[in-house]
Amino acid sequence: MFRIVCMTLLLSSLTAGVAGGQGVAPLPLMPLPSQVKPGTGEFLINNGFGVTLEGFTEPRLERARQRFLNTLSAQTGIPLWREAYLNKPMFFIKTGGASAPIQQVDEDESYHLQITADEVRLEAANPLGVLHGLQTFLQLVRGTPQGFAVPAMTIDDQPRFAWRGLMLDVGRHFMPLDVVYRTLDGMEAVKLNVFHWHLSENQGFRVESKLYPLLQEKGSDGLFYTQEEIRRVVEYAHDRGIRVVPEFDMPGHATAWFVGYPDLASGSGPYQIEREWGVFDPAMDPTRESTYTFLDGFIGEMTGLFPDAYFHIGGDECNGKEWDRNPQIQQFMKAHAIKDNAALQAYFTARVQKIVAGHNRIMVGWDEVLQPSTPKDVVIQSWRGPQFVGEAVRGGNRAMLSAGYYIDLNQSAAEHYSADPEGNGPTTLSSDQSNRIAGGEATMWSEYVTPENVDSRIWPRTAAIAERLWSPRDTRDVASMYARMAVISQHLNYYGLEHNSSYPAMLSRMTGEPDPLPLRVFGDVMQPPRGYARGDLGHYDAFTPLNRMVDAVPPESETAREFSLIVNRIVAGKASLADWEQAQEWLLLWRDNDAQLQPLLPKSQLTQELAPVSANLRQVSQTGLDAIGYLREHRSAPPGWKTRQLAFLKTSEKPQAVLLNMIAPAVANLVQATANSPTAAHKD
Amino acid sequence: MFRIVCMTLLLSSLTAGVAGGQGVAPLPLMPLPSQVKPGTGEFLINNGFGVTLEGFTEPRLERARQRFLNTLSAQTGIPLWREAYLNKPMFFIKTGGASAPIQQVDEDESYHLQITADEVRLEAANPLGVLHGLQTFLQLVRGTPQGFAVPAMTIDDQPRFAWRGLMLDVGRHFMPLDVVYRTLDGMEAVKLNVFHWHLSENQGFRVESKLYPLLQEKGSDGLFYTQEEIRRVVEYAHDRGIRVVPEFDMPGHATAWFVGYPDLASGSGPYQIEREWGVFDPAMDPTRESTYTFLDGFIGEMTGLFPDAYFHIGGDECNGKEWDRNPQIQQFMKAHAIKDNAALQAYFTARVQKIVAGHNRIMVGWDEVLQPSTPKDVVIQSWRGPQFVGEAVRGGNRAMLSAGYYIDLNQSAAEHYSADPEGNGPTTLSSDQSNRIAGGEATMWSEYVTPENVDSRIWPRTAAIAERLWSPRDTRDVASMYARMAVISQHLNYYGLEHNSSYPAMLSRMTGEPDPLPLRVFGDVMQPPRGYARGDLGHYDAFTPLNRMVDAVPPESETAREFSLIVNRIVAGKASLADWEQAQEWLLLWRDNDAQLQPLLPKSQLTQELAPVSANLRQVSQTGLDAIGYLREHRSAPPGWKTRQLAFLKTSEKPQAVLLNMIAPAVANLVQATANSPTAAHKD
Repeated sequence: MFRIVCMTLLLSSLTAGVAGGQGVAPLPLMPLPSQVKPGTGEFLINNGFGVTLEGFTEPRLERARQRFLNTLSAQTGIPLWREAYLNKPMFFIKTGGASAPIQQVDEDESYHLQITADEVRLEAANPLGVLHGLQTFLQLVRGTPQGFAVPAMTIDDQPRFAWRGLMLDVGRHFMPLDVVYRTLDGMEAVKLNVFHWHLSENQGFRVESKLYPLLQEKGSDGLFYTQEEIRRVVEYAHDRGIRVVPEFDMPGHATAWFVGYPDLASGSGPYQIEREWGVFDPAMDPTRESTYTFLDGFIGEMTGLFPDAYFHIGGDECNGKEWDRNPQIQQFMKAHAIKDNAALQAYFTARVQKIVAGHNRIMVGWDEVLQPSTPKDVVIQSWRGPQFVGEAVRGGNRAMLSAGYYIDLNQSAAEHYSADPEGNGPTTLSSDQSNRIAGGEATMWSEYVTPENVDSRIWPRTAAIAERLWSPRDTRDVASMYARMAVISQHLNYYGLEHNSSYPAMLSRMTGEPDPLPLRVFGDVMQPPRGYARGDLGHYDAFTPLNRMVDAVPPESETAREFSLIVNRIVAGKASLADWEQAQEWLLLWRDNDAQLQPLLPKSQLTQELAPVSANLRQVSQTGLDAIGYLREHRSAPPGWKTRQLAFLKTSEKPQAVLLNMIAPAVANLVQATANSPTAAHKD
Repeated sequence: MFRIVCMTLLLSSLTAGVAGGQGVAPLPLMPLPSQVKPGTGEFLINNGFGVTLEGFTEPRLERARQRFLNTLSAQTGIPLWREAYLNKPMFFIKTGGASAPIQQVDEDESYHLQITADEVRLEAANPLGVLHGLQTFLQLVRGTPQGFAVPAMTIDDQPRFAWRGLMLDVGRHFMPLDVVYRTLDGMEAVKLNVFHWHLSENQGFRVESKLYPLLQEKGSDGLFYTQEEIRRVVEYAHDRGIRVVPEFDMPGHATAWFVGYPDLASGSGPYQIEREWGVFDPAMDPTRESTYTFLDGFIGEMTGLFPDAYFHIGGDECNGKEWDRNPQIQQFMKAHAIKDNAALQAYFTARVQKIVAGHNRIMVGWDEVLQPSTPKDVVIQSWRGPQFVGEAVRGGNRAMLSAGYYIDLNQSAAEHYSADPEGNGPTTLSSDQSNRIAGGEATMWSEYVTPENVDSRIWPRTAAIAERLWSPRDTRDVASMYARMAVISQHLNYYGLEHNSSYPAMLSRMTGEPDPLPLRVFGDVMQPPRGYARGDLGHYDAFTPLNRMVDAVPPESETAREFSLIVNRIVAGKASLADWEQAQEWLLLWRDNDAQLQPLLPKSQLTQELAPVSANLRQVSQTGLDAIGYLREHRSAPPGWKTRQLAFLKTSEKPQAVLLNMIAPAVANLVQATANSPTAAHKD
């Protein structure tokens, strides 16, 4: 009836330091501010805490004050509604003036935050800076022997880039409003300021149009946002200093439009909502005037909902096959000397750009929309790489980077962190050209996420991207980033984000047990496949349940990352005694976990597929233990052992049950190192 | 940087059985249905699952269907929106007819649920039965080797009592709407049908009155529900088969009314919102006609918001001191031959009852409102005991029980489960009198809860009370209740309830660590003090942070309960080898945990107070290990050991840092048993 299971508890020295109030270096801040001067003592928070607005005020600031108090109350468990009643403020906010009624790209977002033992002063030119400063303060709160407190310091801070975005694809898997709201909450926490809302796809059209109601009636399965809901989201974002840029992808990625309006398309129809993933043939017909009439009406209606100065028209991945097959389109191309499909898309884009401009919006598009004739105010979003950002800004356009920030691809935070909108080499851009680099955007494409696990794909890794876009360019210490990201990940729990809670909840569902620890021990060293590999490992469509182990585990295994760091020290001959022991303890844990886990696995369809993976983890761990034995005791392995193990580990690194065993590469490093043991040449 | 901590994993045989699909006895249902016949095979749920409404339909049923699909989708991770698209129903709901437009007390709530391997048929006379049947089905879903499934069976079910309530006090600590909504969701899951909303208290008046706006403007600190919000809650409850009975407590417990309207009171004022807990002097003036004019207007306005046939006027704990001190009131009593304060309250109650009746509502009140002259339709809610329920129904009134269901008092589920509205002895009531026992209500008074931890005080223990009120009277197996409650507690996670998540979240806040396991091991055997003890263990008021260990730990320690069952078997000579080993393992875990925990405790003010408690747990565990050693090896303890240890354990059972060490009583049982060892008489 009972069993004892051993579990690994990771206590990063930073976390302990924060909890213990043992100093403030490195500060648990993400993104790191541009300038911090430490002060003396600390500011204590008690139930008499109050906040006062000075200078310019507006309802948004009053709401921000209340939200700040609510979050602070959640962080501390101290009721703070008393402050209205006591009227004894110790936190003074001074706002210079208003920001633009519709938030602009290049507004002043700087703030000055001065924390002493007695009071806090936050000053900013406008409400945007105030919003950022409040979030900085919240990140600094931690328990101390005296109570919840913030260390005294002075911060002067402003962003490196003006465009710091997160794209959410709600076309492939619809994301209900609560996901959108909490995503915006998380964005505010890490100072992102653009919510790029990818609202239409082959698999769904997600906005109510009153002008063209068949768009949502036939193209959404009933899963769309009403205009009233859109307005509320835009207001909610504005309250948090976030611009909302809508994207309606065209001329490709648009099958869902054609279900209700087949005449928009280049094929003969009828069309169905697409249920599979991939790139599909249907595309808008760029040769008919009725297409542009429709888009003019539609874009006009949407600009009434989305006040932002920018309007994203997608433009990516149009394969042109419907164009090839349509004689009228072929004839049109001949008649107008349009030499190929790229040129035809350029013609379409130019027409659409005029429509967008006619509605007083600036067009944004993916790489493909950039053509020599593209107007200079069009913003290019590059999914291909910093070099294409460079190309765009050299040509006179503004551009931003998304290559490297594809958070759906299950890459590590370190990989995202290393991507820089200005590239990482020496710059060949003039200062004018550099200035046209607007920033970047993380992109959350939704083939393989649901409302249940989408938070775990966005957070906390997006905080690392937010730091890249906000903090000074030389903020590059990966170890510091990971240490701070671990703290911020916990901090984000107070914003209602589910990135930490969805994993155990999904394990519980898989097993019917409240806390299936052996499954957790197993899952903690597994990862989803990276890049686009998952699509090759089984059939997935819009109806496929995403409730397996691969959907539950975080995209980056923190345990495996820590293990590989230890292994690196061992291999480099720089390991401490604690390193050796930790490596051995972990390998024993993983090896012996298999015996605990196997009896659970046959009980549910969702866990059956894990039996060979757990057995493999046991074997890999045994190999690791053997390697550590040889290394530690300076013994050599039996003849052939190393070759056999390396071959075995190579196999083990391949996806199993759509999962990557994340300790196999580190164990391979250990095995590889056995050759370097001083006694490697001896036989025994 | 790293440590390994051992943690206990409890796998009840039931949970394992459910997860493994190894049979259906006992069914993971709560409340247990009145009749279940097992069938053959099981019904599998896949992404083609669909539900069809037959017979009578209404929008509420359509919403119930959608809610059912949403919950089922959350439970399984299978997208079920496809059913609208596929139109292949396998779940047929047949509703006989409408229920009353305003839900009545004695409506038919029965349902018939037939599950075969091929399809599901749910039949009910009206939508109320359908709602209950859908919840029964959801409780039966579990993972199997074939996928998520429900075992074939036929259920015929109806409630024992018509009034199955939960009272929520939003006066002392205001509970925001999201708490109210999720509480209603949980109530629906366990078939409770009355939400008793305690809306006014000395510490707060929580409803918007348009007629008397100073009630909320001066009496709520801005923490109240608007009329529109009230209407939405009433609709939300109605959708779930739940009546909403508002309570406005009078003539006592009403200080918050008097801040805005001092003339209502019997003292001279001015009044302030009460910040302390307890019983206070202010009371309405029962001698002035203006009081009744005010109440007539107010009750009239409120009956416009609350359509239920019943209206609760409280009536409890009026201490009469303001009446004693008011010469006009004393004069009035003399003039009208009112002999004491109880009689004066009876006069008040009779007047208010007429007002309530004048607005076509039936009055409900606590014990104190029962007088010989009380009209027979008034419903008595007994906080004093089943004997007073008996007294009320003998006198011709309907009555319900709350004594024994005070879930704020941190009693065990078993204690609540044993309380029966009809009492537990042989009944002396006639069948007419018995029929007047309407049911009962759990009561969640809110001195010591916040929106953060209130769920953990309500759930899962309220499910045991729900079973007492729904299931046949002979449903009394406590072990079965606990086993099923553990499963239902997990099931309730899918309703957004936070009873399982608040505890680890609060531990995390106390330490700044994501998962402070040693603190969890410690907290798992601690409990808040029971009854009204907490108020004697420190000063508490409306501003006191409730963020300590005592606020985080569940009201009943499941681990300590399991441990004491093992100890009981040991002491009774019925322990298995596994029992002995489990007891020893646990005692070792708790003893050695202290060394892990102590280094963490000084770091935060919230954990400092736990240092001596953890040290005490270590000592208690060592005593337990010693006792087990003597018992197992049939050795006697050194002279004086037993006496010293029993004295030590007696001290250890007292609250420390407002916490009860819940293993101390079981360890005392072990020590007590050492005398009975065969070698107890030997010296060594």
